Amino acid sequence: MQRPSVKERLTGAAFALFDERGYEATTVDDITERAGVGRTTFFRAFRSKEEVIFPDHEALLDAMRSRLAGSTQQTALVAVREAARLVLMHYLGEGGLAQARYRLTRSVPALRDREIAGTLQYQRVFREYIHTWMGNGEDTALSAELMAAAVVTAHNYVLRRWLRGLTDQPETEFETAMATTLARFAEPSSAEDPGSIVAFRTTKSLDTVLPALRTILGEPG
Amino acid sequence: MQRPSVKERLTGAAFALFDERGYEATTVDDITERAGVGRTTFFRAFRSKEEVIFPDHEALLDAMRSRLAGSTQQTALVAVREAARLVLMHYLGEGGLAQARYRLTRSVPALRDREIAGTLQYQRVFREYIHTWMGNGEDTALSAELMAAAVVTAHNYVLRRWLRGLTDQPETEFETAMATTLARFAEPSSAEDPGSIVAFRTTKSLDTVLPALRTILGEPG
Repeated sequence: MQRPSVKERLTGAAFALFDERGYEATTVDDITERAGVGRTTFFRAFRSKEEVIFPDHEALLDAMRSRLAGSTQQTALVAVREAARLVLMHYLGEGGLAQARYRLTRSVPALRDREIAGTLQYQRVFREYIHTWMGNGEDTALSAELMAAAVVTAHNYVLRRWLRGLTDQPETEFETAMATTLARFAEPSSAEDPGSIVAFRTTKSLDTVLPALRTILGEPG
Repeated sequence: MQRPSVKERLTGAAFALFDERGYEATTVDDITERAGVGRTTFFRAFRSKEEVIFPDHEALLDAMRSRLAGSTQQTALVAVREAARLVLMHYLGEGGLAQARYRLTRSVPALRDREIAGTLQYQRVFREYIHTWMGNGEDTALSAELMAAAVVTAHNYVLRRWLRGLTDQPETEFETAMATTLARFAEPSSAEDPGSIVAFRTTKSLDTVLPALRTILGEPG
């Protein structure tokens, strides 16, 4: 068994105390005492009591950026899905800690606000990359924002189901949710594309629109 | 000219002081002194200094709920657009106050977190109504969530452009943004519907998929 790092010991001690005494009533001194380290060690690892609670968003955002930076418009949907999966896998890897954090942030409004605001950072990173792939024009700014919001929404939907104990198949659910979500944003754009998406709204019969459809698909009339 | 209410006087005094001295350095006593009212009056109007900053989310959410409650699945898209427009119009009506709040919340992290978390409340209300219209099944939970997120994202996109001074046509931009956004979620559902949306992904020729398409449309093979 691997020996827990100082950060892990402090986190474990903090969450145990939050459970026993409540978040507000627990001090940094309580945490360091329980973990058997000094205050200096605590403040080398975390800026504040609040910091102990949250995942290392900066490290996660960097991992996401690395995955997205290797992509182009042609592979955008795969990159977006995999970058989102990196974040999900981090939470799943935390196991009980992620679930304890979820219970805690639900019960302390300021922590809940910060947790929610944190997810916006992920949305912003997705939006930046997606908007770049779309050419960074003002005409695609809203589309990029909508796609980023959809990805984060689908990710959070599955994550929340797992945190609440509503699923023990989060990875499978993630794949399905992402596929459904990204299909709304799929555009035929490369030779590797498995086909074309055809979408139209009509009150006419199929035969009436067929010649136009054939033209679109480049088929003989 | 209408005489400002006590709430408006307190809000005006608070924002003026936040601008002059900064948010942290301003106390409730400073605000009541500037507004020429007592502490009791302040705490009858607001629970805390922080409360002065934010719009009356509860009143706005209630207005939204009233608009949405009058709708059914048939008129869902119109109801959603109009409920979102209610919120936009409230901010536009605030004018300079909304812009001062925006500058302030950008500069104080805890206020920014709370502002962001506040928008999630709107998303939740949209999701509840949309999910009800979709039949409240587990199979439509993600779709409802995605649509609610899209509506709030489009609304915030236009609102933010106006708050930043990037547009002086927020109402027109809102109509366009909402139309683009909701088109992704349009489903044929009523006699008033202007037609059907057909969407498919295929690598096959049109003739290959035609029999299946005819079946779907209820046309003779």
